[in-house]
Amino acid sequence: MITLITDFGFDNHFVGTMYGVILGINPDVKIVDICHEVKPHDIYEAAYFLEHSYKYFPRGTVHVVVVDPGVGSLRRPLLLSTGDFFFIAPDNGVLSPIMETFRNKLQVIHLTNHKFFLENPSKTFHGRDIFAPVAAYLSLGVSYQTLGELIEDYYLPKIKKVIFDDKGSNMVGSVIFIDRFGNIVTNIDKRLFEKAKQIKKGEQFQIKIKDHSIEQIKDYYAQGAEGELIAIFGSSDKLEISINKGMASKFIGVTVGEEIKILLKGT
Amino acid sequence: MITLITDFGFDNHFVGTMYGVILGINPDVKIVDICHEVKPHDIYEAAYFLEHSYKYFPRGTVHVVVVDPGVGSLRRPLLLSTGDFFFIAPDNGVLSPIMETFRNKLQVIHLTNHKFFLENPSKTFHGRDIFAPVAAYLSLGVSYQTLGELIEDYYLPKIKKVIFDDKGSNMVGSVIFIDRFGNIVTNIDKRLFEKAKQIKKGEQFQIKIKDHSIEQIKDYYAQGAEGELIAIFGSSDKLEISINKGMASKFIGVTVGEEIKILLKGT
Amino acid sequence: MITLITDFGFDNHFVGTMYGVILGINPDVKIVDICHEVKPHDIYEAAYFLEHSYKYFPRGTVHVVVVDPGVGSLRRPLLLSTGDFFFIAPDNGVLSPIMETFRNKLQVIHLTNHKFFLENPSKTFHGRDIFAPVAAYLSLGVSYQTLGELIEDYYLPKIKKVIFDDKGSNMVGSVIFIDRFGNIVTNIDKRLFEKAKQIKKGEQFQIKIKDHSIEQIKDYYAQGAEGELIAIFGSSDKLEISINKGMASKFIGVTVGEEIKILLKGT
Repeated sequence: MITLITDFGFDNHFVGTMYGVILGINPDVKIVDICHEVKPHDIYEAAYFLEHSYKYFPRGTVHVVVVDPGVGSLRRPLLLSTGDFFFIAPDNGVLSPIMETFRNKLQVIHLTNHKFFLENPSKTFHGRDIFAPVAAYLSLGVSYQTLGELIEDYYLPKIKKVIFDDKGSNMVGSVIFIDRFGNIVTNIDKRLFEKAKQIKKGEQFQIKIKDHSIEQIKDYYAQGAEGELIAIFGSSDKLEISINKGMASKFIGVTVGEEIKILLKGT
Repeated sequence: MITLITDFGFDNHFVGTMYGVILGINPDVKIVDICHEVKPHDIYEAAYFLEHSYKYFPRGTVHVVVVDPGVGSLRRPLLLSTGDFFFIAPDNGVLSPIMETFRNKLQVIHLTNHKFFLENPSKTFHGRDIFAPVAAYLSLGVSYQTLGELIEDYYLPKIKKVIFDDKGSNMVGSVIFIDRFGNIVTNIDKRLFEKAKQIKKGEQFQIKIKDHSIEQIKDYYAQGAEGELIAIFGSSDKLEISINKGMASKFIGVTVGEEIKILLKGT
Repeated sequence: MITLITDFGFDNHFVGTMYGVILGINPDVKIVDICHEVKPHDIYEAAYFLEHSYKYFPRGTVHVVVVDPGVGSLRRPLLLSTGDFFFIAPDNGVLSPIMETFRNKLQVIHLTNHKFFLENPSKTFHGRDIFAPVAAYLSLGVSYQTLGELIEDYYLPKIKKVIFDDKGSNMVGSVIFIDRFGNIVTNIDKRLFEKAKQIKKGEQFQIKIKDHSIEQIKDYYAQGAEGELIAIFGSSDKLEISINKGMASKFIGVTVGEEIKILLKGT
């Protein structure tokens, strides 16, 4: 099975062409679209979508990510093997969640074996000419070691983490995604939040985003009253700010990158 | 075969994740996207898309609809069997056209058997954690009776029907959908219109929508002159108001819910 | 294998319904979406997507194109066989690149055999009622000659070609597509440009579009400095005007049809 994440959108023939290349090499493989509406060149959004979807696929799945502003330049095409999954993408940080999660069991290949590319690959569409055919050959059982050279100096960008300030009394995170329902997804993980409360020895807290303040976490969207701003741990176990049947992102006017703070009050 | 109708859109990893869950359980099943651009939370639009597409699929197809503003609340996850098809959706009325059409041969199951859900289902993404795995197990041949309890008190909302006023001289319907070509689709069915004319014993009629009036029904869009507002029975046998190569919805400024009236004039 | 190009968009059940019809006839066929976001009724855009994707698919693929403003009128439904591929579309010019490329080895069938249509085909949705079932039967191995009558008077529109003026010193082309990254794709082909330079015996040239002028062609987008307008031969070997990580189309304000000129300066 092969999955695709790209920023190609749907108003063109780019994704369809990748399907053609893949199925020309392996007509029996299943191809699944995870997302093609990544914001143009938005490596972090693509990384977020990958992080929260890859593990729902069967073992052996080849995940291909083509968000590639540096296409044609010296940035390297990569293949990662974690043992359970393969990941194919440019070496621009788009695979960073995978690199962090599997740091010690990772094999990283610089894709250099032209035998598995289309002939005369273009310098503007490696999705079609390099990533698609390599994924297809891999799905046919070609050994990943034959596809290029093992490297260790792959690019792993520093990703903004949640930090604690004021002697651990405040958690400071940021908005990482806004979905089409207007839910504001942050990088504050449920487990980290629970642990922080334990350390502070108390259940009281105050969530602050822009001028708004929330002191309770609900279980699901429909618990919110009309127009009420609520907090929730969403389907990726990240803290979300939402309005039941409303657009929280528009209501409070935030975009990706906005700061969110949790004041832990202890007992 | 499994089909999907959701309001998830494409700018995220939600649909792709459902594919992963389904194919992880049944790698051989075909999955077909009917629509993922249902307007957020618009149960009636989803019901309309389902009503006009489900029967084109082979017998045994499992149709999954996830437009689910009440996710996580007490609203029940349902499975309907009509004998020919299965339907999986929340108990919020989104299956009402199916419930009405198959009223007497319907088996309705409240999905309660956690054995066929993902472990620890979230309260915000039942598409991934409940509906997808249940559909996958069903496609593997699991008997639908084992998936939960038979119920009869499912929710069937009253849907706005076409009415006759002025002693049957007027048909009063409403706009139920506007497509991307600007065609205004109404709930006036071809057979109902033909029958009404027969009862009135006459072929003369006048269609009124906003300030506009049409006295003829054409066969296809290209019969309309440039800029001419025309009436047509579209591919679902519903009355449509259109402009050949133009956007009728913008031209006359209507949205879903707008009234449409047909004055039947008799002989 | 069957591919689909339509202008149906995703906010409805039209494409999904075509899937249902095809899989109802041939449950084992693979269906690939090349593009469903062709601008409504834009025959030339659909032709462009088809031209640059069809050959990446395996021999025997059935390519279906439904951009069909004349649906229901006398315009004929067509099937083209090139020996390697089949193409199914209305006779409105949407297959013109194929007609031109395979002029001498083309068999063109007017689809008239109702046995391979859905019963009582509508006059507004031939994608569902004619094109989908014919493609499905073809993929099952039905001989294409049985699907209708051989014709030779198919419609082949004159497509705007690149011309040379001023005794071959200027190439005059036009913008044919703008992609979601703002890249401005023109109809000037790499081979034609190279040949023209050879004839002029010189490497110097000046590309002019609106008030802008470019005197060099780069290899890939990332070679452009911030905000710099660059020229590049893109993945279809057509000249593109681009800005690295920017929207060239917005920056210089062009739309499809805009003129582009290359002054060939000789030695």
